[in-house]
Amino acid sequence: MTSENDLQFSELKVTVLAGGVGGAKMVVGFDRALRPGDLSVVVNTGDDFRHFGLQICPDIDSVCYTLAGVANKTYGWGLEGETWQVADALKELGAPTWFQLGDRDLAMHMERTRLLEHGKSLSEVVKTLSRRMGIQSKVYPMSDQPAPTMIETKQGSVLSFQDYLVRLAAEPEVKRIIHGGGEHAQALPGALKAIEEADFVVLAPSNPWVSIDPILARPGISEALIKQTVYAVSPIILGKALKGPAAKMFAELGIEPSSLAVMEHYQETLDYFVHDISEPPIEKNDSPKAERRVGVPEIVRTLQFQTIMKDENDKVALAKAICSHYLQNRCDA
Amino acid sequence: MTSENDLQFSELKVTVLAGGVGGAKMVVGFDRALRPGDLSVVVNTGDDFRHFGLQICPDIDSVCYTLAGVANKTYGWGLEGETWQVADALKELGAPTWFQLGDRDLAMHMERTRLLEHGKSLSEVVKTLSRRMGIQSKVYPMSDQPAPTMIETKQGSVLSFQDYLVRLAAEPEVKRIIHGGGEHAQALPGALKAIEEADFVVLAPSNPWVSIDPILARPGISEALIKQTVYAVSPIILGKALKGPAAKMFAELGIEPSSLAVMEHYQETLDYFVHDISEPPIEKNDSPKAERRVGVPEIVRTLQFQTIMKDENDKVALAKAICSHYLQNRCDA
Repeated sequence: MTSENDLQFSELKVTVLAGGVGGAKMVVGFDRALRPGDLSVVVNTGDDFRHFGLQICPDIDSVCYTLAGVANKTYGWGLEGETWQVADALKELGAPTWFQLGDRDLAMHMERTRLLEHGKSLSEVVKTLSRRMGIQSKVYPMSDQPAPTMIETKQGSVLSFQDYLVRLAAEPEVKRIIHGGGEHAQALPGALKAIEEADFVVLAPSNPWVSIDPILARPGISEALIKQTVYAVSPIILGKALKGPAAKMFAELGIEPSSLAVMEHYQETLDYFVHDISEPPIEKNDSPKAERRVGVPEIVRTLQFQTIMKDENDKVALAKAICSHYLQNRCDA
Repeated sequence: MTSENDLQFSELKVTVLAGGVGGAKMVVGFDRALRPGDLSVVVNTGDDFRHFGLQICPDIDSVCYTLAGVANKTYGWGLEGETWQVADALKELGAPTWFQLGDRDLAMHMERTRLLEHGKSLSEVVKTLSRRMGIQSKVYPMSDQPAPTMIETKQGSVLSFQDYLVRLAAEPEVKRIIHGGGEHAQALPGALKAIEEADFVVLAPSNPWVSIDPILARPGISEALIKQTVYAVSPIILGKALKGPAAKMFAELGIEPSSLAVMEHYQETLDYFVHDISEPPIEKNDSPKAERRVGVPEIVRTLQFQTIMKDENDKVALAKAICSHYLQNRCDA
């Protein structure tokens, strides 16, 4: 990218809707590409849960740790250079160990819980802690109210999300995904404002069912997106998810895992759909539902960029490719 | 002590009422002197508080860590060989650091909080965790309901106990000690039973105001003690407390810190009062209140043993001295 591009990007305000690991990668690309403070991130809190009395927000932590440059590069969760003194002691005590809690990670959960117990809202806590971590981008939980994602399995049980994903290693077959909270978990006003005031919005390459849908399910979010220029980046490449159970979930829900399926899933809100350059282009008549959705391919335009983000350069390049596309398109209009 | 003594002690069931550090020292002496399982300890929970979302029970932990042989020998609180990874991370995050939380200690608070949030009572949690630690003596919180001790200062503020003791280093002048909980914090039935079924009861050399009084304030405890043979061990030696703010509190409450003052404080429930051999004997007419309590010295008999417990031998010797006295007295009767 030329410095001319960078100068152009300095005008842009972008808002990304993100889940955990895949979302965090995309977010850090925009954070580095834009002027400090011009990125807003609306983060899924459907995974949040209480464990050992502590309020744990896995996706917010993934995003914040990545933005602060302290995320663990090997695992995709937790912190680099983490220690495990408390985890070892918990094991000795016979406490459950299925959710791994590093010592420094634990300090974050403790301080968040302390601030919440002192009456602060989750969004206030996230603002305080992200500032203390030196993060300049704005990080918003999707809601200040709980909106837990539950997994109904084909075996008939309803599992809390971390139970399903971590304790049971995403092994149960998914029948239905339930987005909790309903009308009681309104979209965070600051998140809505960030969506409204952005030049464009990006749905990060997170799991559509359990990372992005919980955000879209918040009253007010879909309405705000319809008025916006919205990009989505596919988390599926050649039928597979780079990480996590997205492809397995698609299959269990009776949908062939593909970028096309992701595009169809999001179609109501999208302007542009980005999928990886390694895939064949998505054709108008690829969609088996095309007949009853005449014209959709005219509305949702597909783009192909390199979406595999192995290092920071890849992340920044993808963010800049989307920004450049937006600027060109804006100039065309 | 001869093996004959030890054989005699094997008949005895003893219940100790204890606070933190001084109490834990006495408790471990009886634990080692008696047959496994024949010691019961009723522990002050007036110091319990919530911090970082975790339920912290300082006195229960002091007693359990000491009984399990893992207590820190230098500080009198916390664990031997403790690490401080989480504390360091909390400090980096800008979290409050006035209450020191070692990593292994923290695991205990986390597992306790987890079990409480799963609906277990505090006494069930203490039973479970003390067993997991290999403790054979029975440890009972004084109540399953909260009964927080508050400190009213001469400056007019009311402080929670840990705020006063730890955060403010016991510096504010004490005007009044308030025992919270009232009728809502009944004595634990198991604790009452342990008092009733013991051969004798000992009030450990803990702070009378803030470690023993909260236990005595539980409805049912005083009534149970009146029917029992009760020993108390003075925490004051030659006008000073070995540890903690007991002597300072006595002075601020307008009472000269002395073993006599401790004896007078407990007189309603005592049969025998043990003070250190380094002190002059307490005489009948030492008590300035003797006139209106005629006969008290006839009811409360004073004993002098070595009460400074520098090592495990000292602790066991004091426990055995009290046991021997009890057995001799029982044979005399």
